[in-house]
Amino acid sequence: MSVGSDPGLRAVRVAVDAMGGDYAPEEIVAGAVQARHDATLLLVGDRARIEPLLARYGAAGEIEIIHALEDIAMDAHPAQVLRGCERTSLGGAIELVRNGGADAVVSAGNSGAFLAIALVRLRTIAGIARPAIAAVLPGKHGPFVLLDAGANVDCKPEWIAQFGLMGSAYARAVLGIAEPKVGIVSVGEERAKGNAQVIEAARCLDAAPIRFIGNIEGDEIFANAADVVVADGFVGNVILKLSEGLAQTIVGLMRAEVSSAGPIVKLGACLMLPAMRRMKQKIAYETYGGAQLLGLRGTCIVAHGRANRDAVYSAVRAAVTAHREGVVERIASLLDVGT
Amino acid sequence: MSVGSDPGLRAVRVAVDAMGGDYAPEEIVAGAVQARHDATLLLVGDRARIEPLLARYGAAGEIEIIHALEDIAMDAHPAQVLRGCERTSLGGAIELVRNGGADAVVSAGNSGAFLAIALVRLRTIAGIARPAIAAVLPGKHGPFVLLDAGANVDCKPEWIAQFGLMGSAYARAVLGIAEPKVGIVSVGEERAKGNAQVIEAARCLDAAPIRFIGNIEGDEIFANAADVVVADGFVGNVILKLSEGLAQTIVGLMRAEVSSAGPIVKLGACLMLPAMRRMKQKIAYETYGGAQLLGLRGTCIVAHGRANRDAVYSAVRAAVTAHREGVVERIASLLDVGT
Repeated sequence: MSVGSDPGLRAVRVAVDAMGGDYAPEEIVAGAVQARHDATLLLVGDRARIEPLLARYGAAGEIEIIHALEDIAMDAHPAQVLRGCERTSLGGAIELVRNGGADAVVSAGNSGAFLAIALVRLRTIAGIARPAIAAVLPGKHGPFVLLDAGANVDCKPEWIAQFGLMGSAYARAVLGIAEPKVGIVSVGEERAKGNAQVIEAARCLDAAPIRFIGNIEGDEIFANAADVVVADGFVGNVILKLSEGLAQTIVGLMRAEVSSAGPIVKLGACLMLPAMRRMKQKIAYETYGGAQLLGLRGTCIVAHGRANRDAVYSAVRAAVTAHREGVVERIASLLDVGT
Repeated sequence: MSVGSDPGLRAVRVAVDAMGGDYAPEEIVAGAVQARHDATLLLVGDRARIEPLLARYGAAGEIEIIHALEDIAMDAHPAQVLRGCERTSLGGAIELVRNGGADAVVSAGNSGAFLAIALVRLRTIAGIARPAIAAVLPGKHGPFVLLDAGANVDCKPEWIAQFGLMGSAYARAVLGIAEPKVGIVSVGEERAKGNAQVIEAARCLDAAPIRFIGNIEGDEIFANAADVVVADGFVGNVILKLSEGLAQTIVGLMRAEVSSAGPIVKLGACLMLPAMRRMKQKIAYETYGGAQLLGLRGTCIVAHGRANRDAVYSAVRAAVTAHREGVVERIASLLDVGT
């Protein structure tokens, strides 16, 4: 391992669950190979399957393998994954963070299982009731953070307020925004607008040591009305998936229009391709990497279940940034200020 | 009034709140003038302001005016609008439906006030606890219905199940779908995924005399996974506004890419304009008209607060269709079957 003398320059050690995700282990290993100069990687999973892949991608012997024979099914129920989880690739990768063998963990596997195991093995930061999934999304004027993107579907108002705190620390650390604007998703701008849960959560957020700007409506989210968009995990997940789906629908409608149009429109579309590609790059999920599970005592990055090698590469880079910028420590210190 | 002998051919009488909306009364009156051959219109509002507008748009004396001096502020609280509401343009328009003077009412004014007054003056259909806002949205393969789009932010599960029933009757009547697929918005396909409210509402929907297909996720909504998308009014409103905002953001990003690109891309964009216009037409809010308040004993159409004349025109046409197709009666008869 390339451990330098200066801890600031020491390569971040990232444990990657090689067996989790729709395209595991092939795309996971390929993504790790791509990221091998950005971090010290530890591939956790079935050695017999990982070794040939490393050889195929021209990185035989370059990445350490931590053998784990079992893996967790994508549809396994979170409650059933805890028993014997240390023998699984996901459980083994999380264990490396717990015992100091790694600085961060990345998995594209079952996110419910990831959350459940991490919650029990790493536990939450003092003052945080529940971890939340923080997704970085591309807004009109730059990236913003959405949380909770799906960890907690039934929330207490004070948990939602804690999401605001965590999101603020995260945006400062990862997006480099000095005083992130934190907004809560609601159905109107006025403070009285919203359901009972949101109105109460907003009251809690008023008292938090962050820049809380109040309610933001659905149409303001992608216009960067806030740097941190707070919602319960149900609403947050609907927002995340709806925006993914809608972007695809619009692109699909555009394709259909072009393919049913005459040659002049088709020529126009060809000429526009470079601009389209740049835009696609801007809004591509892959470039925004994995989502961090905030609130845990350790850096945990959830990659998309359908993650390809580029998404895995981005997730590893997200893990490196989160560890380097001390997201976990910043959340802890913000909670100290708040209490 | 053009009242024929055959009630099926008799013009539908639509009361329009001339004073409600950001661009009232100018755009409302202009929209009514545009729609005057599609329905028998009754413009409710300040005669002194409406008459000159009718003259300006070349329709002096062609549309009946029902004088109402007061109007309701866009930001008035629903609880405060009931007292003396019969003197307002919105209250007067609703009153016309109650006393049989009109078949339907259209307003682009304060939607909370619309709902509150209609609830008290018209009341709900037997078996319906709360009215819901049904919005017709453009999916990838055609229109679908979303409800509740914002009337009830705190819902009981059985209300949400009633929304499914109402939406099914509406989709059959207005979209002409024989057996509309009804789905509930959730965070996963499996029945066990969702928050407590959604899981319980899905259980109620299973027992309803409709084609309930279970959970649909955010990314499936605009892919027409369901003809009727059911959610509580908080989630529904976020979906409605987010999709509006995101479509605008994507178009804006595209414009920015083109304007910062070289001459070839710019030429391409020019050549593509016709296809772009057709797509814009497909997804334009205006072409889909107003949203119906379902569950009331009367046809009530909410137009967008920012409605221009085209949107008002579409809302009047939506009112005519809803009345002609007997949406209110169909909901009532579906409830008879269900009990």
